Amino acid sequence: MQVTFILYDGMTALDLVGPYQVFAGAPGVDVKLAATVPGSKRTDSGMVIRADVSTRDVDAPDIVVVPGTVHPQAATSDPELLAWLSRVAAAATWTCSVCTGSLALAAAGLLRGRRATTHWLARDALRALGATPVDERVVFDDRIVTSAGVSAGIDMALAVAARTWSADVAETIQLAIEYDPQPPFAAGSPRTARPAIVRAATDALVAASGRVESPA
Amino acid sequence: MQVTFILYDGMTALDLVGPYQVFAGAPGVDVKLAATVPGSKRTDSGMVIRADVSTRDVDAPDIVVVPGTVHPQAATSDPELLAWLSRVAAAATWTCSVCTGSLALAAAGLLRGRRATTHWLARDALRALGATPVDERVVFDDRIVTSAGVSAGIDMALAVAARTWSADVAETIQLAIEYDPQPPFAAGSPRTARPAIVRAATDALVAASGRVESPA
Repeated sequence: MQVTFILYDGMTALDLVGPYQVFAGAPGVDVKLAATVPGSKRTDSGMVIRADVSTRDVDAPDIVVVPGTVHPQAATSDPELLAWLSRVAAAATWTCSVCTGSLALAAAGLLRGRRATTHWLARDALRALGATPVDERVVFDDRIVTSAGVSAGIDMALAVAARTWSADVAETIQLAIEYDPQPPFAAGSPRTARPAIVRAATDALVAASGRVESPA
Repeated sequence: MQVTFILYDGMTALDLVGPYQVFAGAPGVDVKLAATVPGSKRTDSGMVIRADVSTRDVDAPDIVVVPGTVHPQAATSDPELLAWLSRVAAAATWTCSVCTGSLALAAAGLLRGRRATTHWLARDALRALGATPVDERVVFDDRIVTSAGVSAGIDMALAVAARTWSADVAETIQLAIEYDPQPPFAAGSPRTARPAIVRAATDALVAASGRVESPA
């Protein structure tokens, strides 16, 4: 199985690394970190992660994962990436997104009329691109798999691993990464967070959604 | 507040990026990615992440985070790192580890006689270094904070953020990263995983604990 992760300047680190840590633990997997222009990519918090290969050198991935970003245009403004996504998704077993990575799938024409999820603050943007946003953490619609904000990529990747390999493989990975979450607060969803927290998170995310920087 | 993450060849990507994503969301935080020799570091699954600064240029971090690794010696075999940890921990508000990062804290002399946690498969190794391993996900002992395997760094960082800034800040970050985990299986702990899964994960982790590679 060949799993390709898409990297780009402005991506959110945990959107990438959550599912990466899951899929990298599958037996015999071939993981590629790809970008339309390979090299160093700066995440939206500053960390620099290397894209080892060009998407031009990845022809037929079995699984594709597109991470999200706080910068809406960063995921959707690369025509070469959108054309690549549209082409490889036709043959891939699973084409997946984390957080606002769903906007790139939608911009590539992959979510028209489909049920899909995204970060809770990006549902209107997803609807504007032709998808039907639903309030679920992981959504399978045919061979497209979307997940909610940032940390939801871990749950998504475990669910995809179970369908791709087996439940045993997914459970073994879950134990290896000791994914027995014990969040200290019930604040992880706008359904459970206090209204003042929803306002504060909205303000912080809107303030952060500015210019995209490239690494020095 | 200055938060320094330690990077090294062989570290586990999610050990680093889980708490990174949490602390990077705190207001006015100064995050540094540091190594005794800065530059590209290859994680134990292959991903390359950049250490931007030398530990020699970080004198007085408020919070230090040491990620773990499947290669036991990778976290404990750098005398310059251990000396740095020992020195800065004396003044830091919190000195933290994820997974087997606890072995580096122990090797630096910071866990003698202390309650601490680590990856479930590393408890004997932690005991051999003078700590008292406990079966908890996040352990505070004075100003040392240890967490269980890999994904536990997210829970740890939220707990530390709540004590460092406020519960409101931690809850806002938790909502921003939509940390409302819904693991598809109850396999995240050896207490809940089926015995065959515990054996499979043990075999996989033991097989993986070999040579450490540096990036090309």
